[in-house]
Amino acid sequence: MADYFEDFEVGAKQLTATAQVSEKAILDFARAFDPQPMHTDIQAAKNGPFHGLIASGWHTAALVMRLIAEARPFGDAQVLGLGVDELRWPHPVRPGDTIQSEMEIVAKRASESNPNYGIIGVRVTTRNQKGEVVMTHSPACWVRRRPSNT
Amino acid sequence: MADYFEDFEVGAKQLTATAQVSEKAILDFARAFDPQPMHTDIQAAKNGPFHGLIASGWHTAALVMRLIAEARPFGDAQVLGLGVDELRWPHPVRPGDTIQSEMEIVAKRASESNPNYGIIGVRVTTRNQKGEVVMTHSPACWVRRRPSNT
Repeated sequence: MADYFEDFEVGAKQLTATAQVSEKAILDFARAFDPQPMHTDIQAAKNGPFHGLIASGWHTAALVMRLIAEARPFGDAQVLGLGVDELRWPHPVRPGDTIQSEMEIVAKRASESNPNYGIIGVRVTTRNQKGEVVMTHSPACWVRRRPSNT
Repeated sequence: MADYFEDFEVGAKQLTATAQVSEKAILDFARAFDPQPMHTDIQAAKNGPFHGLIASGWHTAALVMRLIAEARPFGDAQVLGLGVDELRWPHPVRPGDTIQSEMEIVAKRASESNPNYGIIGVRVTTRNQKGEVVMTHSPACWVRRRPSNT
């Protein structure tokens, strides 16, 4: 999108690349971090409330982080998360799904604690290949202010 | 804590086990999901704003999910997240740190969409070995109601 806090405009949007989610990736992540049958056991998941294996919501969140990092919304600067609000998973992510995130700048304000930084509020909407929303969240990120001598 | 929605009391607390975070685990997770120098490049991280390698916040979140899943706060029932609010990372997690989460029930209400479920609001505070808070978040979880014939 841009490099400095001053360059960002509320309402600006950016789309990430896409990521496909394999059954193996779902199982591997869940066995490491979210060992519950709906994420780790194909047969149990089939008989469970989602009628099939679904990705851990934290796996989806991690994949979205990668899509955002690779989209470099803040140019050369790293994505420094201050926190996240309203993290939701309206539809499950299933094996073979392809997801893509849309970032929209929804707020900006100066930092009260650091005059070299501003804070950008982003609304991220992640959809699968059918256009169903699989995750929404609202991160707030530190972004450098333009040095006054440039 | 308990098995059915009716068994939970606002104010009840439960502590998870602990998890130690290795440098290799930080690098592996970040290379897969959050490829930014503060998480993936030991030398660049040393010269960066955190003066050393730090874990991706999503890595910390995934580790906390594992601690919660293994603590089985809802007994035999899986932890079915409806969403998460107020996810924050006040202190970074560094190689060698040991983290532990405390869950507190802060709210409960009936589900409007499904009479078989209630919704439990949990406040989770995760600390490192020095007692510094490294993550806070407030998940809301689906929990089964006690069948009326038992």
